[in-house]
Amino acid sequence: MKITLTRINKAFHYEAINKDKIVVHIDANKEIGGEGEGVRPMELVLMGLGGCASIDLGLILKKQRQELLDYQVEINASRNEDDAKAFKSIQLHFILTGNLNADKVEKAIELTLNKYCSVALSLSKDIDISSSYEIKN
Amino acid sequence: MKITLTRINKAFHYEAINKDKIVVHIDANKEIGGEGEGVRPMELVLMGLGGCASIDLGLILKKQRQELLDYQVEINASRNEDDAKAFKSIQLHFILTGNLNADKVEKAIELTLNKYCSVALSLSKDIDISSSYEIKN
Repeated sequence: MKITLTRINKAFHYEAINKDKIVVHIDANKEIGGEGEGVRPMELVLMGLGGCASIDLGLILKKQRQELLDYQVEINASRNEDDAKAFKSIQLHFILTGNLNADKVEKAIELTLNKYCSVALSLSKDIDISSSYEIKN
Repeated sequence: MKITLTRINKAFHYEAINKDKIVVHIDANKEIGGEGEGVRPMELVLMGLGGCASIDLGLILKKQRQELLDYQVEINASRNEDDAKAFKSIQLHFILTGNLNADKVEKAIELTLNKYCSVALSLSKDIDISSSYEIKN
């Protein structure tokens, strides 16, 4: 897996590119000299976590023959107040639409976050990752 | 910090959005049903790591009055072979252009990865993160 980042101005705007040549724009916040031209690095980690959890959850629900008609996940995070400002806690709230069995959904979320999600399992064990869900018909 | 992810097809294509309404498209790989319409979640983590390291390194070099004329970082990663496929190792190779002092660059990279970079310090301590650099004039 390879990513290349190139600075595209004299401030903090970068272009990140993957092997399929898909580009993501990254920028720092304005307080330190960014220009709001891209996503913040820590936001990318949350997007990665949400994406990974969503794919794994979708795969498990599919195996369980639980049909997802619509799907969303909201991710909130808090950060430490030291120099590094690493994540302190991350909450994922899954919003699932369909005729779904709550017990199966609960089990699928648990398996996703604790066994399958590559991003969740690449994060520091110091981060308190929690989840909740709602089912809409 | 808040991110919302919404599924936009019946497969694994998601739209992630941050508070500034900047959108990143995420997709699974084709082997598991994705359509190559976006970045892979684990790639987003590498982009986040690269972005964060780049911003912090840029800030430190600026304080040291080291002028960066051009800048790129290449990030390579390997993953474990178990169910979770978490990162095993990540290598960052910094390519810095300018009239730069190698000792200062080395110190700046060390501080970036071990003290300031929020993403690096949010990752699992089981991941072997290493770095190298080259200076171009």
